[in-house]
Formats: sequence, structure tokens, C-alpha cells
Amino acid sequence: MTRKIIRRLNAAEKNFDTQLKQLLAWEAVANEQVEATVAEILQQVRSRGDAAVVEYTNRFDRRDLVVAEDFLLASLELDQALGRIGAEEREALEIAAQRVRSYHERQKQESWRYTEADGTVLGQQITPMERVGIYVPGGKASYPSSVLMNAIPAKVAGVDSVTMVVPAPQGEISDLVLAAAAIAGVDQVFTIGGAQAVAALAYGTETIDSVDKIVGPGNIFVASAKRAVFGHVAIDMIAGPSEILVICDGATDPDWIAMDLLSQAEHDEQAQSILLCPDSEFLDAVEASLLRQLEDLPRAEIATKSLLDRGALILVDSLEQALQISNGIAPEHLEVSVADPEPLLAQIRNAGAIFLGRYTAEALGDYCAGPNHVLPTSGTARFSSPLGVYDFQKRSSIIFCSPQGADQLGRVAATLARGEGLEAHARSAAFRVKK
Amino acid sequence: MTRKIIRRLNAAEKNFDTQLKQLLAWEAVANEQVEATVAEILQQVRSRGDAAVVEYTNRFDRRDLVVAEDFLLASLELDQALGRIGAEEREALEIAAQRVRSYHERQKQESWRYTEADGTVLGQQITPMERVGIYVPGGKASYPSSVLMNAIPAKVAGVDSVTMVVPAPQGEISDLVLAAAAIAGVDQVFTIGGAQAVAALAYGTETIDSVDKIVGPGNIFVASAKRAVFGHVAIDMIAGPSEILVICDGATDPDWIAMDLLSQAEHDEQAQSILLCPDSEFLDAVEASLLRQLEDLPRAEIATKSLLDRGALILVDSLEQALQISNGIAPEHLEVSVADPEPLLAQIRNAGAIFLGRYTAEALGDYCAGPNHVLPTSGTARFSSPLGVYDFQKRSSIIFCSPQGADQLGRVAATLARGEGLEAHARSAAFRVKK
Repeated sequence: MTRKIIRRLNAAEKNFDTQLKQLLAWEAVANEQVEATVAEILQQVRSRGDAAVVEYTNRFDRRDLVVAEDFLLASLELDQALGRIGAEEREALEIAAQRVRSYHERQKQESWRYTEADGTVLGQQITPMERVGIYVPGGKASYPSSVLMNAIPAKVAGVDSVTMVVPAPQGEISDLVLAAAAIAGVDQVFTIGGAQAVAALAYGTETIDSVDKIVGPGNIFVASAKRAVFGHVAIDMIAGPSEILVICDGATDPDWIAMDLLSQAEHDEQAQSILLCPDSEFLDAVEASLLRQLEDLPRAEIATKSLLDRGALILVDSLEQALQISNGIAPEHLEVSVADPEPLLAQIRNAGAIFLGRYTAEALGDYCAGPNHVLPTSGTARFSSPLGVYDFQKRSSIIFCSPQGADQLGRVAATLARGEGLEAHARSAAFRVKK
Repeated sequence: MTRKIIRRLNAAEKNFDTQLKQLLAWEAVANEQVEATVAEILQQVRSRGDAAVVEYTNRFDRRDLVVAEDFLLASLELDQALGRIGAEEREALEIAAQRVRSYHERQKQESWRYTEADGTVLGQQITPMERVGIYVPGGKASYPSSVLMNAIPAKVAGVDSVTMVVPAPQGEISDLVLAAAAIAGVDQVFTIGGAQAVAALAYGTETIDSVDKIVGPGNIFVASAKRAVFGHVAIDMIAGPSEILVICDGATDPDWIAMDLLSQAEHDEQAQSILLCPDSEFLDAVEASLLRQLEDLPRAEIATKSLLDRGALILVDSLEQALQISNGIAPEHLEVSVADPEPLLAQIRNAGAIFLGRYTAEALGDYCAGPNHVLPTSGTARFSSPLGVYDFQKRSSIIFCSPQGADQLGRVAATLARGEGLEAHARSAAFRVKK
């Protein structure tokens, strides 16, 4: 091997746990300067509404907006963008949207109720949120797939109104993003971004209705603004760098596995690609392939830094050990590239999305397989889930006591309330007890 | 009426919307001094583990702990507490636990999958979290019902280990709380509290395993600590003051409705009780009843301040208008005290728990009806749900492509990836496309 492209670890070594911990270490750094700037923007938009949004947008996005109507995109423009993109891209977006919709339809939760012997009815009523805001980054990092992945679950949930905000630096905006919005059924688009867009969605302005939840990725100002408005509205997770963990038995084409690792590494320099395999010669072959395939990769510089800083090829003694390590890591993406992945599936405890078999490249899931590509990062798959329809639905408990049920339950409740020193609770329950 | 106990509003008045907005205004105040103290405690526990927990516990709870084992409660002590409480209280706790368990069993989500025509399998795998921590306040505010409501959904979800922390000021701890922990099946109990307990659960110590999620109510230090560790672990909501909104047709016994309002008002001075009714004479009767029933209420002082500061009797022109106002408020508890509540249910969009009919006092739901009493407050029912089994389960997407499926999807993914400038994604997908 001529030059080092990725570190090698061995799970059998004594200090492996420490090395793994160092490899995974990543913590969002709070930036006080950013937080202060964001706090000021939130405050200004909250108190001055549209006027503040216009000012910040002109300043940060080099626009020449005069009035608020100037940042509202006419729905005609969405349709026009759909007409401008290539036929192949349009078809790909439509296939992806259809598959994402079809998968997410199965996540819909239904209301339920049951009646007890004494006539008391208990249940859970499911309702969609009323208004949802989707943040879409603008400029160079233009991701139409994110528009589909964020908007479609909200629409499937039955949200009344899905509002998209996307900055248009110097008035530029991606046709693919607008086309994806049209296909996903986004209800309105405002060409604003940054903390001012998050503030407008959270607090509302004269032109923009406040929403119940804000989802979608953004830069540090957007993430910081989402964190600040959390509680006032719901937000999705604050994502860390993207990661893939591949478990391979050593019999998949090493070029395939290397490219799967590279597809993660090309995202950004902090992205993390890890391979676990019981065959050290296979690890050699993947390392050689990484070097070779990096040569003509457009984003080679980013991928190289990602692999060097945060990547690892790890020798394990068995696939079982690999699964155990993987459960501890709780990866965002887990590829199980083995001959028969099915028996391993039941042992997977923590993972955002699981890609089974040699043919399931993570990239298929990123775009069009159907499941969502918004996934828990940085080990948070221990306690969180992919973005889904359930993120746009909410539940209300239902209790409807019959007189007989209220009599029985009232006695129990009165006893427990008095045990907690809450006499009005006890009396309120006791009123419904038969005398 | 001799003295004022609660404000009166009329939805027909011109400035009603403004008045309502003022009535509902409540925002958690960030306390920088508390946050700084909490940050120091988190840092100390994170770096020094048990030693720091022992020190803070001795200082804040006036204990004489020497080693970490001193704050571990032996499981025998739970059983002993169960033996010490009264037979009536024990039976009430057991009935409540059984009903809560039975309701929550219906919330369990199951894994699912489906196979497409070309053999590609898509699905969603549900797994429980591994370890969950429950914070239970100690001292005077001893709420065994909260132990049941927080622990049972976690156990029903299949969480491997449920750890309870409860402070024992001067060594004192409530038998009812310990008995409830025994009945709920809590796996271990540590007699620690405050930010130091939250830190121990979030980061782990030599004695305490770190958990994946922390739930349960606490004072401002606990709430601040939960907010600070959020992201590192999951947390439940940070609750605001408790509230009830009653919609009544004017034909329920006014004493019942008055006591329902009082049962909310007795919680704390910031609690909020609101009644909406189209019959102004009924509002008069409820007001008179409030004054009369307050007279011998043990917590009359708290309830009086709550009613005066935050309560309201609101005259509406119809039940439909009442529902519309209620949907805007998104109350934590919504009582619909009318002859036939069923037709109104479908119009309820935002509410934590819905209590239907004249016999369903909110207090029944607080203790033993079955649904959870941990509910979204301060209008957050617009986007959040009662605590439930789903809060302790998580989902992983499953994708298992057949060679034919990978061929089809690979083409679509490659097109979309190139549209986003991600060439390694495109190549990774294209490797699986038939040549």
C-alpha cells in the first residue's frame, strides 16, 4: 500500500474499546457568537414580522425585496420548473416520490377505542398537525431528494398546509428543488432562508402563517434557530454528520463496498464511513479500491479528508461480534452485506436504516427505495427513529366513563388522590361515586 | 356575588381574542443562575462520577452517604414498603397499575414488512430502548401515580432496564412511591435527585448505567438538567403548568364542574382552569359553587390564587364556538361535559386527553382510567402526544433489494444523485445496475 487513506483497527486488540470511542467522538459545538446573532434575528422577526424578514433576506441573500409579497413564490413557478427540468430527471423524481409515498402510507396510525364491560370507553384519537414548515437549503447544496423526504410524510399524515422555505441567494433557486416541491404537493413556497425563515415559521408574520412543526436540514444558523424555537413549535432532530457502518462477510465485490464507503465520505469532511469484516485480506482489497476509485471522484478532496479523519476498516472475529459493535455504535445507516442477512436482522438493536444483502447500496435508500433518508445520527438511533408519518400525527387520549365505570374508578381515584394530598381531586372523583 | 374568585370573559366581545391571548400567555423563563449551577453539576458528575453524586446528594439532601452503594436501594426495601402501606391504598395502586398496563398494551407498535413484485423487501423494525431512567420528585410532593404513569409504558414497550431516581431528603422517602415502583416493576432505585441524578442517568457513573431516555417531572434544576442533556439522551417534554379546559352545555351539576376546575387549580398557583359554556346563568352557578367549595378545601390558598390569576369562565354562543376556541388553545385536559359528546369528538383537533360526558372527571384520568397523565401542556398538544409506549420504542427502516430491484432502483438513484452532484452515490448505485 503506497499511502494511508483510512485507519485500520482490530477488535481483538486490548485498547480497541478506547480507540473506537475516540473514533466515534463527536459533539455539536455550541457557538455563542452564532447563538447571539440568531437570538437577535428571532427577536426582530417576532416583533417586526415581514419587515424584518425582508431586511435580513436582502442583507444575507443579496436580494432586492421591497415588500413581503416579493418572497412568495407563485405556484405557477413550481409548474414551470417542472417543465424546465430534463425528462429523465423528472421521471426519476416521480418514481422516487411514488415509492416514498407508498412506503410512508404504511406508517399511518389509526385511531382506536375499546369498550369495557361496564360501558366505559377508552381510546386514542389520531389527528394530523395543521401546519408544517419545511426548511430546504439553497445555493450550491441543492437537494431535491430532501424535499421529497420531508414533505411527503407530512402530506401522507394529512397535514392541512405544508410550507416550504428555501433561500434564493441573488435570486437563484434550483429548478430541481422547485420541481420536487411540485411533485411532493408542497402548498406554498417562500424564498427565504436562515434564522429569519425559521423565525417566520415559528412565530408567523403578516404574510406567513406560524406552523406547528419545522423540519429539514440547514446550516449552523438554521440549526441554532431551530433549537431556540423548540418547545414553541416542534422540530425534527438536529442532525450530526452523516455516517455509514458496513458489515461485510468478505464476499461482496470490494469495489462495491469501497464505493459505498465513499458515497458517505463525499457528503462532507466530518462524515463517517466504517467497515467491519472478519477477513483482513478483504479489508486490504477495500483499502486498495478506495485509493483507486478516489482518483477520478469529483469530490475526492472531501472524501479523502473524511476517510482519513473519521473512517475505519475494523477487523472482527465474527459477524456476531460485528453486530455487537454495531449495536453499541447505533449507526445512522447500517449495511449488512452478507450472503444471508435475514438471521442477523433480529440481532440488530440500534440503527436508523438497515440495508440488507449485497445488492442494497445505501444510495438506493437515500433516493428512491421508499423509506425516509432523514435518520438519527451520532448514536441517537438508540432512542430515535427515521422521520416518518408519525412525526406529523399526534394522539389524544379518550376517556368516556359510564355512570357505573365512574363509580368504580371514582373510588380508586379518591383513595389515590388523598394519598397524594390532593383533596379537590378526590372530591371531584367522589361526586361521580354512587351514594 | 360578594367577592371575585375568577375572571369572566365573553367570546362575543370585540377584544375577546386579545383577552384570551393574555390569559393563556405563559412562557418558561430561562434562569441563567440555575443554568450555570446545573452546568457545573453536570460537568462534575460527568468527570468524577459517583464521588460527585455522593457530594451533591449529601449537600442538597442533607444525607450522610459515604460510598456510592449507600444510594442504591435494595429491592427488599421496595417489597417492605409494599407491606407497610394500607390495604386500601395498595389495592387502589394495583387496580390503577393494571388498568394503565391494559390501556398501554394497545399502544405497542409491531414491526411490519412487505415484498414487492421483483422480490425487494421493505419494512420497519420496532425495538424497545435498552435502558430508561425515571425521575420521581421526593419530599412533600410525593406522587406514586407518576411512578406508575412513567414506568408502566416503558415496561410494556419491553425496555430491558427501568431505573428510578428519587431524592430522599434527610433519608426520608415515601412508602407510597416505593410501593408504586414495586407494582410497576421498576428494576432498580437510586435515592438521589436534582441535576446530579439527571447527570448520572445521562452520562453514567461507576454504579449507575447510563440510560437512553430520561422521563419524569422535577423542579427547575431537574428541568434545566434534562434540557441540557437532551440530544445526548432522549427526554420527555419539559412540562409547563397543568391546565384544564371544560366545555359544558350548562346541564351538569355546577358543583361537579366547579370541583373539576378546583382539582386543577389546587395543583399550583400557575395551574389554569377554564370553563366554556353558552349559558351565563350556569357560569354564575359555577362561580358561586367555587366560592362555597373553596371554603373547606385544604389547598384553598393555592387554588384561589390559581383561579384569580389564571382561571376564566367564558360565555360562548354555542358548543361549536367552544370547540373552535378549544382547538386554538390545545388544552392539556379537555372535559366535554355535555349530554351527547360523541358528535363533538370528531371536531376536536388539539388536546392531550379528552374526557367525555358528565361522569368523566379529569381526576379519573389522573389516576386510574388507563390513559397516561403525562400530557402536553401550554398549547403543545398542537404537535405532541401523551406519554406512551411509543415513547420507549424506536423504528429502523429495512431495505432488502433483489438483484432486479437494485437494477431498477439503481438507475433512478444514479440519475437523482448526479442531479445533486454526488457522483460516488451514483456509482455505488450503478454498480448494482445490470450491465
